[in-house]
Amino acid sequence: MNKKKGSTILANRRFSGSLTLAIVLFVSILINSCTNSPESAGQPNIVIIFCDDLGYGDLGTFGHPTIRTPNLDKMAEEGQKWTNFYVGASVCTPSRAALITGRLPIRNGMCGNRRVLFPNSIGGLQDSEVTIAEALKTRGYSTTCVGKWHLGHLPEYLPTNHGFDSYFGIPYSNDMDWAKPDNVKDWKHAMKEPEYEYWNVPLMRNEEIIERPAVQTTITKRYTEESVKFIRENKDQPFFLYLAHNLPHVPLFTSEAFQDTSLRGLYGDVIEEIDWSVGQVLETLRTEGLAENTMVVFTSDNGPWLVYDQHGGSAGLLRDGKGTTWEGGMREPTIFWWPGRIQPGVVTDMGSTMDLFPTACILAGADFPTDRIMDGVDLSQTLFNEEPGLRQTMFYYRRTELYAVRLGMYKAHFITKTVYTKNDTLIHHDPPLLFHLGEDPSEKYNIAEDHPDVIADIMQEVERHQAELVIPESQLDRKKPQ
Amino acid sequence: MNKKKGSTILANRRFSGSLTLAIVLFVSILINSCTNSPESAGQPNIVIIFCDDLGYGDLGTFGHPTIRTPNLDKMAEEGQKWTNFYVGASVCTPSRAALITGRLPIRNGMCGNRRVLFPNSIGGLQDSEVTIAEALKTRGYSTTCVGKWHLGHLPEYLPTNHGFDSYFGIPYSNDMDWAKPDNVKDWKHAMKEPEYEYWNVPLMRNEEIIERPAVQTTITKRYTEESVKFIRENKDQPFFLYLAHNLPHVPLFTSEAFQDTSLRGLYGDVIEEIDWSVGQVLETLRTEGLAENTMVVFTSDNGPWLVYDQHGGSAGLLRDGKGTTWEGGMREPTIFWWPGRIQPGVVTDMGSTMDLFPTACILAGADFPTDRIMDGVDLSQTLFNEEPGLRQTMFYYRRTELYAVRLGMYKAHFITKTVYTKNDTLIHHDPPLLFHLGEDPSEKYNIAEDHPDVIADIMQEVERHQAELVIPESQLDRKKPQ
Repeated sequence: MNKKKGSTILANRRFSGSLTLAIVLFVSILINSCTNSPESAGQPNIVIIFCDDLGYGDLGTFGHPTIRTPNLDKMAEEGQKWTNFYVGASVCTPSRAALITGRLPIRNGMCGNRRVLFPNSIGGLQDSEVTIAEALKTRGYSTTCVGKWHLGHLPEYLPTNHGFDSYFGIPYSNDMDWAKPDNVKDWKHAMKEPEYEYWNVPLMRNEEIIERPAVQTTITKRYTEESVKFIRENKDQPFFLYLAHNLPHVPLFTSEAFQDTSLRGLYGDVIEEIDWSVGQVLETLRTEGLAENTMVVFTSDNGPWLVYDQHGGSAGLLRDGKGTTWEGGMREPTIFWWPGRIQPGVVTDMGSTMDLFPTACILAGADFPTDRIMDGVDLSQTLFNEEPGLRQTMFYYRRTELYAVRLGMYKAHFITKTVYTKNDTLIHHDPPLLFHLGEDPSEKYNIAEDHPDVIADIMQEVERHQAELVIPESQLDRKKPQ
Repeated sequence: MNKKKGSTILANRRFSGSLTLAIVLFVSILINSCTNSPESAGQPNIVIIFCDDLGYGDLGTFGHPTIRTPNLDKMAEEGQKWTNFYVGASVCTPSRAALITGRLPIRNGMCGNRRVLFPNSIGGLQDSEVTIAEALKTRGYSTTCVGKWHLGHLPEYLPTNHGFDSYFGIPYSNDMDWAKPDNVKDWKHAMKEPEYEYWNVPLMRNEEIIERPAVQTTITKRYTEESVKFIRENKDQPFFLYLAHNLPHVPLFTSEAFQDTSLRGLYGDVIEEIDWSVGQVLETLRTEGLAENTMVVFTSDNGPWLVYDQHGGSAGLLRDGKGTTWEGGMREPTIFWWPGRIQPGVVTDMGSTMDLFPTACILAGADFPTDRIMDGVDLSQTLFNEEPGLRQTMFYYRRTELYAVRLGMYKAHFITKTVYTKNDTLIHHDPPLLFHLGEDPSEKYNIAEDHPDVIADIMQEVERHQAELVIPESQLDRKKPQ
C-alpha cells in the first residue's frame, strides 16, 4: 500500500517543468519493465549505514585505542576507508537532508535559526525535493528506512512519503520529548545515567506510532533485525536500505548483551553494538549471496558531541566536534564496501554524503534531477577505477551562514565557533583563517598570510556559489500560525 | 672479529654471583652446540623496527587521514595492533636503554638531569647491563644494530660492545653536532628547511666513522638496504635485527623518491619512506622464506615532538607528546607480525618496549638475567594464545622522578608537565590526578575524588616499587674530570 502511495506521489511532485515530466512518465513505464527483468540483475543493492554523532576517531580502524570494532575494521580492510569524507552540516536535521537529497541544506530548506527539527516543529522535507529513495524507486528498487529520520515527523514528511516503501524507527532525536520524571534531578543527570522512560520518544512503523516511549535499550538490536529481515525478503530484486542508527547520540543505551563490555564505558558499549550490527548486515549479505552485488557505505551525520564528556565521542586528531565547522564537526569515519568491485585501500580524496545520491543513481541506472542544483558528485571513478575524485570544494554551513570553504587541500574559515570549550562564541575572520588540511589536519597553523592567492581562489568559489544560490523558506523556523 | 670480542666481553661481565657465572659457563658451552644445530631451526628470528619521535596517530592504521602507510596497515592487518604499548621514557636515550635492557632507565643509569646523551657526554650504557643482543647471542643468534644508537658514542659503549656483531648508523640524534653554518639564520630556520650539512653527525660502521656529516637524505634508504642485506646473509641461522630509524626526529630528510610525495608535507614524506622500508624488510622475509619464522615488532621511542609544529607528528587523540608523561609522550603505535604464529587482531592489553627482552629470550630459549630486577614481562601469552597480558603497571618516569603510574586502566599523575603549550611548567598534584584510560583515553576528566581506593592501590604499588629501587650513578650527568 505504501509502495503504491509512494509511486503516485512521485509522479505528482518529483520534477518541475514539462520536459522533466516527460522523463518521469518514460521512467514510470520503465519501472514496470525493469522490476525483476534481466536488466535489474545488474543493478546493485545500496545500503547506507548512518550513525548519529559518531566521532572521526571512534573506530579501531580510525585510531581509537579502546573501542573494539572488529567488523568495521574488517569492512575497511576489505573495502575503502575514506579519510576526507564530509557531511552537509554539523547537526542532525540538515546533515540528513543533505544525504537524502544530495543537496546542501541551504538549498532544500532544512536549516535555519533553530538548528534542527523539534517535536513542536511543523516543517519538514518538502515534496519538491527528490530523495535517493525516490530516484531508486524509478528503477524498481525496494526501499526502506530503518532508524532515525529527523526530516519531519508530521505524516506528510515521513519516509513513506519520500520514496521509502516502509519505515521503522524514531522520527527525531532520542533525547527529545523529555518526560521530566520526578525522580531525576536534572537533564544532565538523566543524560549521564539514562533510563529510556525519561524520554517519551515514539517508535513508528510506517506512519503509525507503535511504541511510546521507545524502548531504547533494544533499539539498535531491533533496527538490525529489521534490516536483516528486509535484506532477506528483498534478495531477488534490487533494494535500498537506509539504516540510520539513532546512536551514539545521547542518551546512550545498549542491549543487555553489550552492557559493560567495552573498555570505553557506555559510549564504547554503544559503538561496539553498532559494530556488531554492521557485522550482521554484512554477514547477511554474504550468506544470501548478495555481497558481490551490494554497495555498503558506513558513515555518520556529524562529529562527536563533546559537551557530553565521556558520553560524547572523539574526533581523533581533528579539531572540535558537533555543531562546529571545524573538521571534527563535519568529517566522518567512512567506509565503502563491495567485495569484488571496490578495490581495497585508503582514499584521501574528498567525498561527501551528498555524493551518495548521484553515485547510487549512476549505479542503478536511475536519472537524477536536472532541474535544480545538485551538490553531490559521482564517486564512481574513485570507488571503482582508483581515479582522482571529482569533488574539489566543500562548503561548511552552520545554520544559514557560510562559515568555511575547502578548496583542494586548503580550507578558509570566515567564521569560527567552538563548542569544545563550552564557550559559545562566534569569531569573524577577515582575512579568513587558512589551513592546509593535508599538512595540518588538526587545523593548528593559520597560513593565510603566506597564501593570498589561495584565499582569492576560494573567494571566487564563494562568489560563484552565492551567485546561483536560491534560499527557500526555512522548514526549521516555521511556526504554527497563532 | 666483533663477534669474538662480543662473546669475550659477554663472559666477563654479564652476570654477577657465582651461581649465575656457572649458568653463563653452561650457556657458553651451549652456544657452540646450538649454532646451526637442528634446535636452532626452531629459534625464531627477531626484528625490532624502532622509530624516533613517531606519534601515536601518525600511521594510517592508527587513524592518520593524510599520511599513507599501506605496508604498516597491511602489517597490522596480518599481525597484532597493540593500542596500549608503552616506552620506558619519553625521550631518546632513556627510552632506548629501557628497550635494550628490559629495565627502567632509573635502574640502568640512563636518565638524569640532562635528558639525553649529547656529543660532549662521557657516559653510556654500562658493561654491567645485559642487552637483548647479548642474551640472544648466548643462543647463537647473529645480531646487528642498524640506525640510531644513542646509548653512548665512546667506543666502549657502542653496539659492538653490547652484544651486536655489527653496527651501521649514527651514534646519537640527527640534530646534534650543529655546524652553525654561516648561511643559515638560526636553528629554527635550519630545522624548517634542513640541509644535512648543517649538522656534523657521524655515520659509523662498527666502531669507525665512515661519513661525516652523515648524508641524511639517503639514510633511511641505506638503513633499509643494510637490513635487507643482513637478513639475506643470515637466513640460515637465527638472527636479531635492531633497525632503529633516526627519523622522524627533526631535522627531517627523505631520499629523492619520496620528496614531495605525501599530502602531509615533509613529515609525511619521511613516514612514507619508513613505511616503504618496513615493506622492504617484510618482503625480504617473505621472499627468503623466513616470514613464518620471524617475529617483527614495529614501534617508536617516544611521542611526537610537538614544538616543531608541522615537522613534529601527532599523538592522535592522546594528550600531549614527547618529553611528557601524558599518554601522547609514552604510548606508541605498535604492531607485532609473525605470519602463522601471531593471531591477527587488536590488543588493548598493556605492553612495553621493556617486555621485548624477556619475550625474545623465551622465544629464543635464552636465559635472561635473574640477578637484577627486570621491568619487562613476557608477552607470549597474549601474542600467541590471546590470553590476558601479564603487565598490570606502568611507571612513567621523567628524568629521575616518578611522574605517573598506571595500574590496570587507571593512571595517577603526581607531577605533570606540558610541552604542548610551550609552557614548560611542572605542576605537583596531591592528591594525584586520576584518569581512566579506557573510558577517557585523552586524559581529560580527573576522577580522583570518586576513587580514593584506586589511588590507595596505586600508592601501594609506588611504595613496593620504590622499596626495591637502587639508583645507580646517572650516565647522562657524568662530566669530564676538570
